[in-house]
Amino acid sequence: MRILVEIEYQGNQFLGFQIQQQGRTIQQQFEKILKRMHKRHVRIHPSSRTDRGVHAYQQYFHFDTDLNIENNKWQYALNSALPDDIYVKSVQHVDEDFHCRYDCVGKKYRYKVYQAEHRNPFESGLKTYVSEILDLDSMNKAAQLFIGTHDFTGFCSQKTEVQSKVRTLYESKIIKTEDGFDYIVTGSGFLYNMVRVLVAFLIEVGKGKRKPDEIPVLLEEKNRNKIPFTAPSDGLYLEKIYLSDHELMDEFGNHIKIHYKKSLQND
Amino acid sequence: MRILVEIEYQGNQFLGFQIQQQGRTIQQQFEKILKRMHKRHVRIHPSSRTDRGVHAYQQYFHFDTDLNIENNKWQYALNSALPDDIYVKSVQHVDEDFHCRYDCVGKKYRYKVYQAEHRNPFESGLKTYVSEILDLDSMNKAAQLFIGTHDFTGFCSQKTEVQSKVRTLYESKIIKTEDGFDYIVTGSGFLYNMVRVLVAFLIEVGKGKRKPDEIPVLLEEKNRNKIPFTAPSDGLYLEKIYLSDHELMDEFGNHIKIHYKKSLQND
Repeated sequence: MRILVEIEYQGNQFLGFQIQQQGRTIQQQFEKILKRMHKRHVRIHPSSRTDRGVHAYQQYFHFDTDLNIENNKWQYALNSALPDDIYVKSVQHVDEDFHCRYDCVGKKYRYKVYQAEHRNPFESGLKTYVSEILDLDSMNKAAQLFIGTHDFTGFCSQKTEVQSKVRTLYESKIIKTEDGFDYIVTGSGFLYNMVRVLVAFLIEVGKGKRKPDEIPVLLEEKNRNKIPFTAPSDGLYLEKIYLSDHELMDEFGNHIKIHYKKSLQND
Repeated sequence: MRILVEIEYQGNQFLGFQIQQQGRTIQQQFEKILKRMHKRHVRIHPSSRTDRGVHAYQQYFHFDTDLNIENNKWQYALNSALPDDIYVKSVQHVDEDFHCRYDCVGKKYRYKVYQAEHRNPFESGLKTYVSEILDLDSMNKAAQLFIGTHDFTGFCSQKTEVQSKVRTLYESKIIKTEDGFDYIVTGSGFLYNMVRVLVAFLIEVGKGKRKPDEIPVLLEEKNRNKIPFTAPSDGLYLEKIYLSDHELMDEFGNHIKIHYKKSLQND
């Protein structure tokens, strides 16, 4: 049987999703519990392998089991064994041909920035601090220019190893919050560090150091060296995983062309 | 010259204030920076040695230096070198006979509890989760009974090694918050784990398992085994350090008898 698990986590104290030789990761926490239950190693497959320090309001993984347990009992068993900074929101049985990674057709991220006279240690790990006054209107104008299908070579880590760096963004906007702003971006998939590079660039726009109208040129040039910054992981939240075209179309309308990304995806 | 430093920190990722053989502590962070600046070890002396995971909205320490640096430059130098989860709020030069620990005449703690249908991983390390419905009025009634001068032997860790376990509480109350309650307690000093034992007992009162009128008896009996719980460190914040009787009297009135606690104090 294939089990689909929906989770949320505070990424602060994790080295990321993927298991490492040592250190605390999301995968390690779940595989430890599943091993205890199955008396053998059980591998889990996430929709997205979030980096060190990155949070998730919604994340999925699946695994295969021969244990006959009801959904709510799975949820209870996992939550009872998990540490405080991970929570299982739901569990369901899915078809054997469902795959969390290959059936993921889109992701939404939120990046949280707070602004204040000085940094606040109680936001450490949860939001990113920017002290300078920013022009949010200008940033939002720039953010809109990323919407659509583009080659994002210039806006990801140079370590990104994927065949195609073309991705489609359905939504890219800045919204004002009580203490700063959030950047919200939804797309077919994201390259390694892509959201953090987009945010870093938008902050430069907000400071007046870069202009929105550079974006079409930068997308064309595909040169990462033209965008030297990567924003820290603190403020980055994986907000939603889209597991069907239907879900994406419900939110963004039928007129958007859904790009299937069944190939390898980094983020 | 003696320098007094006012700080705040998120305790989440610290093993506590006091330096350990290994691991991240507040003292270690500051002494590392001061050693770099002085080319020798410089010891810092806090008002309170907070435990692992405990936060501080206000904490003080002092140290002696022969470096001639202005207050705001000290603040800038320290903040530039500190990690995100500690912040120096102010720096001032004080008299050579000032001592952070011996001149501390009182402390205020806040303990934060959130209540919800299920635990929230984003509160992990910041607030304590209690799922049961609690009778806050009854808890507040119980909290009031701790005010005054009592022997708190029954309400601290059995590992507490101090001569006298008599402490005076000036304030002890439960206040409702948006998502739960805070317990606020101000006193001349606190024994090891005392606030966490008081909270644990008050939560038992809230659940209806203990009664407010047991408190006078328990204070009299001085038997820690009668109060078996200690609340977790997550929700505990050192909120204020009182460095003069004046400050305490301003807040609690001249009618309170200030108890000098110049002897060793645990908390």
